Amino acid sequence: MKISASKKDLLDGVNTVMKAVPARATAPIMECILIEADSQGIRLTANDSELGIETNIKGLILEEGTVALEAKFFSGIVRSLPDSTVNIATDANYITNITCDKAVFNIAGRSGIDFVALPEIEKTNHIVMSQFSLREIIRQTIFSVAANDNNQLMAGEYFEIKGDRLRVIALDGQRIAIRRIELNESYGDVSLIVPGKTLREIIKIVTGEMDDNIDLYFTDNHILFEFGTTKVVSRLIEGEYFRIDRMISSDYDTRITVDKRTFQSCIERASLLISESDRRPIIMDITDDGMELNIRSTIGTMNETIDIDKEGRDLKIGFNPQFVKDALSVIDDENITIYFTNSKAPIIIKDEEQSYVYLVLPITFSA
Amino acid sequence: MKISASKKDLLDGVNTVMKAVPARATAPIMECILIEADSQGIRLTANDSELGIETNIKGLILEEGTVALEAKFFSGIVRSLPDSTVNIATDANYITNITCDKAVFNIAGRSGIDFVALPEIEKTNHIVMSQFSLREIIRQTIFSVAANDNNQLMAGEYFEIKGDRLRVIALDGQRIAIRRIELNESYGDVSLIVPGKTLREIIKIVTGEMDDNIDLYFTDNHILFEFGTTKVVSRLIEGEYFRIDRMISSDYDTRITVDKRTFQSCIERASLLISESDRRPIIMDITDDGMELNIRSTIGTMNETIDIDKEGRDLKIGFNPQFVKDALSVIDDENITIYFTNSKAPIIIKDEEQSYVYLVLPITFSA
Repeated sequence: MKISASKKDLLDGVNTVMKAVPARATAPIMECILIEADSQGIRLTANDSELGIETNIKGLILEEGTVALEAKFFSGIVRSLPDSTVNIATDANYITNITCDKAVFNIAGRSGIDFVALPEIEKTNHIVMSQFSLREIIRQTIFSVAANDNNQLMAGEYFEIKGDRLRVIALDGQRIAIRRIELNESYGDVSLIVPGKTLREIIKIVTGEMDDNIDLYFTDNHILFEFGTTKVVSRLIEGEYFRIDRMISSDYDTRITVDKRTFQSCIERASLLISESDRRPIIMDITDDGMELNIRSTIGTMNETIDIDKEGRDLKIGFNPQFVKDALSVIDDENITIYFTNSKAPIIIKDEEQSYVYLVLPITFSA
Repeated sequence: MKISASKKDLLDGVNTVMKAVPARATAPIMECILIEADSQGIRLTANDSELGIETNIKGLILEEGTVALEAKFFSGIVRSLPDSTVNIATDANYITNITCDKAVFNIAGRSGIDFVALPEIEKTNHIVMSQFSLREIIRQTIFSVAANDNNQLMAGEYFEIKGDRLRVIALDGQRIAIRRIELNESYGDVSLIVPGKTLREIIKIVTGEMDDNIDLYFTDNHILFEFGTTKVVSRLIEGEYFRIDRMISSDYDTRITVDKRTFQSCIERASLLISESDRRPIIMDITDDGMELNIRSTIGTMNETIDIDKEGRDLKIGFNPQFVKDALSVIDDENITIYFTNSKAPIIIKDEEQSYVYLVLPITFSA
């Protein structure tokens, strides 16, 4: 193989596929980036068997061929090169010569014969959306995916397509995050569970704006994201997702509207009195005079009253501040509305159109 | 005690003294910030017995008194407060009430009776210099202070004052860094060894420019840095420092001048082939055609030739790239000059006036 490409194009490609290189792999070939140069151009691929990424880069093919290079060293080398043309040439033993201006590297490569190709995805089921929207709905829900893998279903996000509606759900047993958007077209009903790990990588490499589209194709076991010259293939999580609709009741006994920033910084302050060994809830005391947040821990006490618009009954309810902070940090609205039923029922933060819904379970406390 | 101060002034003061709060302390009182309000104003102090910092802040004293507050929580609380006036009041049991706008904190404090006061420093020996210069000479030498404490002397920087000259030296057994500056006045000859830890904190809090002065006072056991309303007291390291002058010979057999950035990025690239388990030297091969840097490791090989101005004999010499990178990263000159004697003698990077001198021991290699 003998190719040349600009440092910039090569580095962009390497950075994209690097997201599918595992930190620790079971086989050395999984730690490699495969470079293929053939009639379809120059293609970089990485595949850790759960997630695979392939991207085409611009460049000149002087001799077709294939080589697999250790991803960490290859990416380090490309990043270190001057902003000029990079030439990559392999010999019969896959010793790879990388030159750029006066810098000359020689590193050992592999044939790539044992490199696991990306699965072929049948392009039957499909939706298209803007790259910006995809990134936003993931960002606004991903924090609710369970941190541990005790329950496989909770390690993923549920994508539910009904007509021209896409709803994305993440939950971890203590909270639920839901985002709903309208698609430009209507599609058949489909639902699938995409691993959280895949989505965390997707938001890093899908950098387009509102006008840049991305295609999503689904099979029973896989999802394919296709945008520009890049393909991301991920396995899906199998199983039947949780039925959450009955938890999101639209009845409520108390409803408040509050300035998001004021609420956020008040929670920040109260959180200072929580230590690793003493995880006390923060208590919201909602009356006609306002909402008093207070906390009493071994470190001390804190209280602060903030202005609210209130409708319904007075209420005192305890909550885990981190869960509420996570939701507030991704809501773009200046004012937010929170719905309560009683001190033992979920706290629900949502907008009128329910384009977002965040549900957090309360914590019981001794008064 | 009852005081009020602006959040900004209080936070600046807290951030300054925090540098003397140890991450892990042997006694709880060492993890505290002492607040004193008396006829001399409002004073914050932290003291970890090796390093003590005291700073005065602007504010109103409504009732004189003293309290010691756990530094981590107190600083967290101050940081979290809105940009307004902060009121701090203690009761007879040192329960401390902190209020700011509508936020109300109550935390347990201590009397501070067991707080170790800063040592009184006799102001006999003294120099004055610009805060900018002090920060610069520390920044340009501190990386050569030994990382481990095996040798106490190597854990500090040597300050040597002779007339109107200040020379600062740091060494770790593999390299030496020297900075020399002219002072505005002439002083008696003094030399002392200041702990590296103290200097690392000093460069964070001495933020003044060329026109802002700082006073340094020395006793046999302590150094006092005084600037603005802040005092930093540190113990000194005892012992006789290394005699280094005979190592910095002005003879040389080869002298080269090279563009600093080109040299830096070439070393960066070559360093990529060094792994934790395979610490190979980089080799400089200096001839009339230029300087070829090359490295051969288990990962691969790299070579690159860069342009130099050369005087003297050809030379091939191996070196630890990190040591040379550290020196290059603090030199502000565009071109640097390097002096060599032979492949077993130190590599010396210095400017003509010897305002800086960096000495790095070579590494022997098999050709």
